[in-house]
Amino acid sequence: MNWSIVAFLISVLALGVAAWLYTWVKSQPSSNPEIARIGLLIKQGANTFLGREYKILAVFVAVVAVLIFFFLPHPIWNGNPANNIMMAISYIVGSALSALAGKIGIFVATIANVKSAEAATKNINQSFMTGFRGGAVMGMAVVGTSLLGVTLVLTLTGDASAVLGFSFGASSLALFAKAGGGIFTKTADVSADLVGKVELGIPEDDPRNPAVIADNVGDNVGDVAGMGADLFDSNVASMAAALVLAMTLDKGVGANVNMIFCYASLGLLSSIIGIMFGRIGKNGNPSTALNNCTYITTFLFAVLTALATFLFGFDWRYWGATVIGLSVGTIVGLASDYFTNDAKKPVKLVARASKSGPAFTIISGISYGLISVLPSLVGIAISALLSFVICDGIDPTTTVDALFGISMSALGMLSIVGMVISNDAYGPIVDNARGLVEMGGLGDEALRITDELDSAGNTVKAVTKGFAIGAAGLTVISLLGAYMAEANSALLEKGLALIENFDIMNPAVFFGLIVGAAIPAVFSAMLMLGVDRNAQRMVAEIHRQFKEIPGLKEGKEGATPEYDKCIDIATKGALRELIPAGLVAILATLVVGFIGGVMAIGGYLAGNIVTGLVLAMLMSNAGGLWDNAKKFIEAGNEGGKGSDAHKAGVVGDTVGDPFKDTAGPSINTQITVVSLVASLTAGIFAVFSIF
Amino acid sequence: MNWSIVAFLISVLALGVAAWLYTWVKSQPSSNPEIARIGLLIKQGANTFLGREYKILAVFVAVVAVLIFFFLPHPIWNGNPANNIMMAISYIVGSALSALAGKIGIFVATIANVKSAEAATKNINQSFMTGFRGGAVMGMAVVGTSLLGVTLVLTLTGDASAVLGFSFGASSLALFAKAGGGIFTKTADVSADLVGKVELGIPEDDPRNPAVIADNVGDNVGDVAGMGADLFDSNVASMAAALVLAMTLDKGVGANVNMIFCYASLGLLSSIIGIMFGRIGKNGNPSTALNNCTYITTFLFAVLTALATFLFGFDWRYWGATVIGLSVGTIVGLASDYFTNDAKKPVKLVARASKSGPAFTIISGISYGLISVLPSLVGIAISALLSFVICDGIDPTTTVDALFGISMSALGMLSIVGMVISNDAYGPIVDNARGLVEMGGLGDEALRITDELDSAGNTVKAVTKGFAIGAAGLTVISLLGAYMAEANSALLEKGLALIENFDIMNPAVFFGLIVGAAIPAVFSAMLMLGVDRNAQRMVAEIHRQFKEIPGLKEGKEGATPEYDKCIDIATKGALRELIPAGLVAILATLVVGFIGGVMAIGGYLAGNIVTGLVLAMLMSNAGGLWDNAKKFIEAGNEGGKGSDAHKAGVVGDTVGDPFKDTAGPSINTQITVVSLVASLTAGIFAVFSIF
Repeated sequence: MNWSIVAFLISVLALGVAAWLYTWVKSQPSSNPEIARIGLLIKQGANTFLGREYKILAVFVAVVAVLIFFFLPHPIWNGNPANNIMMAISYIVGSALSALAGKIGIFVATIANVKSAEAATKNINQSFMTGFRGGAVMGMAVVGTSLLGVTLVLTLTGDASAVLGFSFGASSLALFAKAGGGIFTKTADVSADLVGKVELGIPEDDPRNPAVIADNVGDNVGDVAGMGADLFDSNVASMAAALVLAMTLDKGVGANVNMIFCYASLGLLSSIIGIMFGRIGKNGNPSTALNNCTYITTFLFAVLTALATFLFGFDWRYWGATVIGLSVGTIVGLASDYFTNDAKKPVKLVARASKSGPAFTIISGISYGLISVLPSLVGIAISALLSFVICDGIDPTTTVDALFGISMSALGMLSIVGMVISNDAYGPIVDNARGLVEMGGLGDEALRITDELDSAGNTVKAVTKGFAIGAAGLTVISLLGAYMAEANSALLEKGLALIENFDIMNPAVFFGLIVGAAIPAVFSAMLMLGVDRNAQRMVAEIHRQFKEIPGLKEGKEGATPEYDKCIDIATKGALRELIPAGLVAILATLVVGFIGGVMAIGGYLAGNIVTGLVLAMLMSNAGGLWDNAKKFIEAGNEGGKGSDAHKAGVVGDTVGDPFKDTAGPSINTQITVVSLVASLTAGIFAVFSIF
Repeated sequence: MNWSIVAFLISVLALGVAAWLYTWVKSQPSSNPEIARIGLLIKQGANTFLGREYKILAVFVAVVAVLIFFFLPHPIWNGNPANNIMMAISYIVGSALSALAGKIGIFVATIANVKSAEAATKNINQSFMTGFRGGAVMGMAVVGTSLLGVTLVLTLTGDASAVLGFSFGASSLALFAKAGGGIFTKTADVSADLVGKVELGIPEDDPRNPAVIADNVGDNVGDVAGMGADLFDSNVASMAAALVLAMTLDKGVGANVNMIFCYASLGLLSSIIGIMFGRIGKNGNPSTALNNCTYITTFLFAVLTALATFLFGFDWRYWGATVIGLSVGTIVGLASDYFTNDAKKPVKLVARASKSGPAFTIISGISYGLISVLPSLVGIAISALLSFVICDGIDPTTTVDALFGISMSALGMLSIVGMVISNDAYGPIVDNARGLVEMGGLGDEALRITDELDSAGNTVKAVTKGFAIGAAGLTVISLLGAYMAEANSALLEKGLALIENFDIMNPAVFFGLIVGAAIPAVFSAMLMLGVDRNAQRMVAEIHRQFKEIPGLKEGKEGATPEYDKCIDIATKGALRELIPAGLVAILATLVVGFIGGVMAIGGYLAGNIVTGLVLAMLMSNAGGLWDNAKKFIEAGNEGGKGSDAHKAGVVGDTVGDPFKDTAGPSINTQITVVSLVASLTAGIFAVFSIF
């Protein structure tokens, strides 16, 4: 059975499901003109940002495509130009498809928010389903286009390197979308809170606040488009790594490649079925509904792949590795949940420490964030070890089978990604809906409903982030294997000695390891400083508006803030701040390769993965923890709203915002980008370096 | 020429110099009874802490010594019992000598603080010299005893493994002294500030504050005894690693071992000479005086070793590696200085960001802390690479020569450690002197002088910490080499295949790498949470005293706080909180070895070094930055004292306290301890593990 044809068909099915879900959402009633007006402002703001971002990206992609054309997979004067053209095209297609998925996601999310707000005036299930199905459009669009793209690129070129090029395209987009969106969303969020809640004491989502629309736009560009691009990227990268290794094993397209497409197809199919169960039952609540969908998807995937393995005679050991990956995803998710859930100890302890002042909120939050690194890293480490050990020996002549096992483990973790994205995109839609209910004055019951939906969104968000980081971790491990395979094929062509290992005691490897370890630190710091600088600009603008627009502060009829000015600041600032950070990561890779060659890059990737995972987990979990500690205090604990503990909690939450929504999750993308740059340039540094 | 005899003689000379300096300090006048009384309280407090710490340590050391006796270097039933006895004794001697040096340091520091305070009523040079020479006693005691110990252990046993045992003893002590002292000092500092400065608005060092003596005791046990033990540990570990590799090259005691003793002796000699220049010239200031001593020492060391290399025919390439290490020390120091000096951009920007509130102080401070990681790590990486490349090929049959080059580089960095400790111990002495001047009411001029001396102490402290971390970094790299040598000698004895590399692609190595990366995160978090918990206890006690002791708050004559209660809380809490953290690090090493064997431990060490360095640099530099940003605001910038920016700055400083004085510098020790545990247990895990 040729599973790449099945993969093609199921991708198309997923896109069809996306279209159907879109029609369903679109058909929901919306009649309130005020909400329609504000909804339109959000939609326009998101489109403005996306438009500008994509314009800059187009330039970036064009430049890189030209560089690829001249240099990759080999300098054009040294190899077959057809390969270079193919690589450049794959790169462009990868970035274009990811951009398209993001555009679709934003398009639907900015319709679904209005519909979900309106539905909240009727009943919770209707409102939930509108939000969830709106998010599911993004889920289907991302996984549909990514699987479609990978299938087409491999089928048309027959070359796994081209898939790496495709993946690099997706990564380039993710870098801009995730980091840029992350800076945008937190600039707006932090500024809105700082002036609105802290200085003036007006509620969240108050329409007098000039940053309120930018804040709602930010949810969309950060969490819908950004997170979608991030998971598009991880998903493609995990398939690319697996394909490179499978083709090394198969010596071309063979049984293992077929297995990858089979598992990926069944993962997508499971997600499609899981989505159909997304509704709140009697006495149910939105968190349970979201979790049930995930459980159904996970269960279906395990059963369907077992069935396929049995029917089509794939090796059970690879299936085992896949299931291990799936389980680690759960472990990482549960760990994130433990450290960020307000029913558990860490959040409560941080809330209590807040009574002694903000310094204690920060110290205890960072400490629990640091501790939260352990279970996730141990989970990833054990799954990599087990997958390797299980699969080693399937092909007795090589250890590539074992590395392939690790890549199947990453694939397993990402198999339910369609479901994960759906859950994740649900969050900003209902968050927006809540804002619309407040701004449109739809009444207390609707506010209560959207509050409940929003809270469920926040809970799954923390888990999803942990999941995304874990998935990136396993993926980049297999990318390390893919990098070695690429470097060796380049060395083989030149008739040079092959790389047998990346020995830590080798000085070039060690050099790379140490330098690589510093990069995620610098990258994340640059993004956070970007938010900092940008928020200062926006706060100044908000102050200006409150001063210069008569009657705005008092909420007089007809005194409307200039929302677009804030959106403009967030947009320009985000794009200005992210470019240097992205360049640092990419250039550092090239410099290390230039100095120490392919061995140094091997170490560099390992160092980058190691500190990248530590910092990403720390930031993501500490951020989630502070957010919920603040909410826990606001719910009346440790003094409740307005107490000193609450003020300290707000400081923690504000620090946590760029941690969890800008820097932390962007580190994933940085790691993937760097890994792909390394794989793609392996051919160059295999023949040239200083040491 | 037999340099081990010279090393012996120079160590004795250093101890003689220490005795002479002590006599000089002791002979300085002190007549003020109030200062004598408070000085005695500090002395008693420090001795109480040290006494209790050493009692617990004695139990710990005894238990470990018994374990060593049974299991190391080989299970006693499998090898020569004499070796086990030798190892156990070396271990005990290592911990005892380090404890002795700490005891001497505290003894003199708690005399010098009183004398320095008194001298401040006369002139600045006298006060400076008293503080500096008091600190120099610690410098001479540490380097004298450590060199003496290493020389004796190697000469008497002829076995580099015994030196590893000696080094492990020093590390065990450092773990307790640095982490325990770090928790003590910050518990007291944070609590004193929180209640004194923030709640009551009374000045620092106000005698009404029940925590004020504990705070002064903390400076001594944290910065004199703690930092001394840390550098004792690094110094011994760097020599141990170099000796293990030298003996592998020499096949016993030979030319390279001789060179190590030569360079170490000349380093100590240079420090002795450098110390003699410690005085403030006309129009000079204390910072310049401290720096001049360091420059003189550095210059002398480079010249003397060049001369020795020429005269005694050592290989110039090893000399080159040594000088590279010395230069990297400077780079790391300069980087720390840039990020923590209030004349430079980062401190100013953090101070400015503080105007928007404490959240921005934290975000920007952490961001610059993360960026500060880059120059130091690149410096360490390049020096390791260069040393390796220079020295590879000195012995054409092996790459051990190249690893030995790296260890010489670490040795070079630590060659001036006598000077570094002198500068470092100067800090708490003059800090104490400042407190005594304030508490004893010695007048404004004396306060101005001790303020100036204290400020110079703070500046060199940040640099010293960076230096200590860098030194630990290079040392553990060479310990990785030592670990491999130890593992191989165990494998050789069992007739098993030797380790040729620690390949990152090997699943056991990768497993270790990922798990190892999480340990410094967890370790540092546990220490910070310890400070947090302990400070909460002490704050409660301070509140109790202000409530229950009549007239204390108002400062009535005769109403004295119960200082000893606070000292007691800090002491008990510090010892209680540090033990679990230390055990986690050690046990994790054993578990990883048990699961993945010697290969996994190789990866584990690399992962541990990598994140350990990143977190240590981040915490140390961010902490220093916040401290100085607060002082910068207090000096009248960005609104000055009492402004919102100042309040935010105080939050940053409070977060920074456990960062820079507890967690950050303790990570060094954790890395060294783990490396030594790994080297010592290599024999066991070489023959047994699950995978």
